[in-house]
Amino acid sequence: MESRTTKQAKREFLRTVAIITVSDRGARGEREDASGQALHDLLTRHGFDVCYQAIVPDEAEVISQAIRECAVVKRVALVLTTGGTGVSPRDVTPEATRAVIQRLVPGMAEAMRAANLLKTPHAMLSRAVVGIRGATLVINLPGSPTGAVENLSVLLEALPHALDKIQGDMSDCARPAGG
Amino acid sequence: MESRTTKQAKREFLRTVAIITVSDRGARGEREDASGQALHDLLTRHGFDVCYQAIVPDEAEVISQAIRECAVVKRVALVLTTGGTGVSPRDVTPEATRAVIQRLVPGMAEAMRAANLLKTPHAMLSRAVVGIRGATLVINLPGSPTGAVENLSVLLEALPHALDKIQGDMSDCARPAGG
Amino acid sequence: MESRTTKQAKREFLRTVAIITVSDRGARGEREDASGQALHDLLTRHGFDVCYQAIVPDEAEVISQAIRECAVVKRVALVLTTGGTGVSPRDVTPEATRAVIQRLVPGMAEAMRAANLLKTPHAMLSRAVVGIRGATLVINLPGSPTGAVENLSVLLEALPHALDKIQGDMSDCARPAGG
Repeated sequence: MESRTTKQAKREFLRTVAIITVSDRGARGEREDASGQALHDLLTRHGFDVCYQAIVPDEAEVISQAIRECAVVKRVALVLTTGGTGVSPRDVTPEATRAVIQRLVPGMAEAMRAANLLKTPHAMLSRAVVGIRGATLVINLPGSPTGAVENLSVLLEALPHALDKIQGDMSDCARPAGG
Repeated sequence: MESRTTKQAKREFLRTVAIITVSDRGARGEREDASGQALHDLLTRHGFDVCYQAIVPDEAEVISQAIRECAVVKRVALVLTTGGTGVSPRDVTPEATRAVIQRLVPGMAEAMRAANLLKTPHAMLSRAVVGIRGATLVINLPGSPTGAVENLSVLLEALPHALDKIQGDMSDCARPAGG
Repeated sequence: MESRTTKQAKREFLRTVAIITVSDRGARGEREDASGQALHDLLTRHGFDVCYQAIVPDEAEVISQAIRECAVVKRVALVLTTGGTGVSPRDVTPEATRAVIQRLVPGMAEAMRAANLLKTPHAMLSRAVVGIRGATLVINLPGSPTGAVENLSVLLEALPHALDKIQGDMSDCARPAGG
């Protein structure tokens, strides 16, 4: 049984977040990282600890490396990317994410698209991927501040439970037939 | 043209089912297989013939092997797994299933998640995969009895047609522009 | 900045379409290509230029080669396949498509299935894939004329924007935080 202090520490660890903005122009300093900022504000309001932010160009290897570092070295609970999820030639964030994750979570990507499809048919063009690398959840979000915030909002209610489980919380294994 | 007897035999073959419960604790005999039992009852009520049931631990290779044996050796029409579809570190049923199936049926997995998302946001955390190995349909279901039954219920109406087609029924190839 | 004439030429290029009917019986000349014709009519009414049509058998390598030729050699903006998306043993169009595309667009396939699921539970059996090869969008549609037209109709509103983006239109990169 865990002590209260350990539980508290674990809870805080579970809510560490890295935000990676994927944008050629952002990486060259040619535009402000409005999406990263919008996500930072939303997450902070919901009790998450944004402990790392970076801007990388739309280069698959650079994106993969940034996600891998956050998951494997920094060991944050949640890595969000914003940008590069569309169908333009330079949009390769989903491929860069697939190269790093070990287990897909297709339902989170489907849920984001289904919710946004009620607002605009262009939602079907988001190629966003969600998956797990080690004990870290990785979520692709679109590049616009509005799109990033709207998509993440679809997932917010399920996120705490998801992060608990990914970190290995075994609580409902005590139930007769859970799992 | 098939005789009435052959058709009847084929129909019965089309409805053979194997249920594989994926659970570390179940495999150690530490808990009752309530999900397997619940699925057995539901299927029997709908005219399926549950001809095989097993409990395996959350080990990818063991799960893959169990599915492969049901599809390739026992040649059942339908393999259901229950358990191991979540995001916990030991949840590897979808990966074990992908390793065995030859053709994905993504729409059945999407339909289960979409229907359950109306009940709970946690439905988006199901990583269930559906696919075809040879002439066998393989469906991942969640581990709780309620979740397993609710998810399978979403598919029940499409199942007979799916199994007919997978077994090579060519009936609507007679239509002018079917296929 | 592009001249008006260049823009007009590009716009026309963006709307070139190839329709590949996948059908063993159609390829043997045993049935009329009603689906190809129905898609041709729908697209023409919506201002697309159907510049190529072919009928191929349900053979993965032949299907892949037909798609590849339309994308890489003919460089059409949009390749539609009709047929071979179901669960019958000969239905291999999705696998043949996956072998050729470089980037998946899962949201378009999800949107087609979700819309059709409101009409029939059999919609969940469509294994259709959508993806990008080079600057060409590839969309799998079912084999019946009605199914093909209904599925494509779900995507029509998002298609012009999708094709613009895939061809490398950078227009909204001018926005402060797009991408």
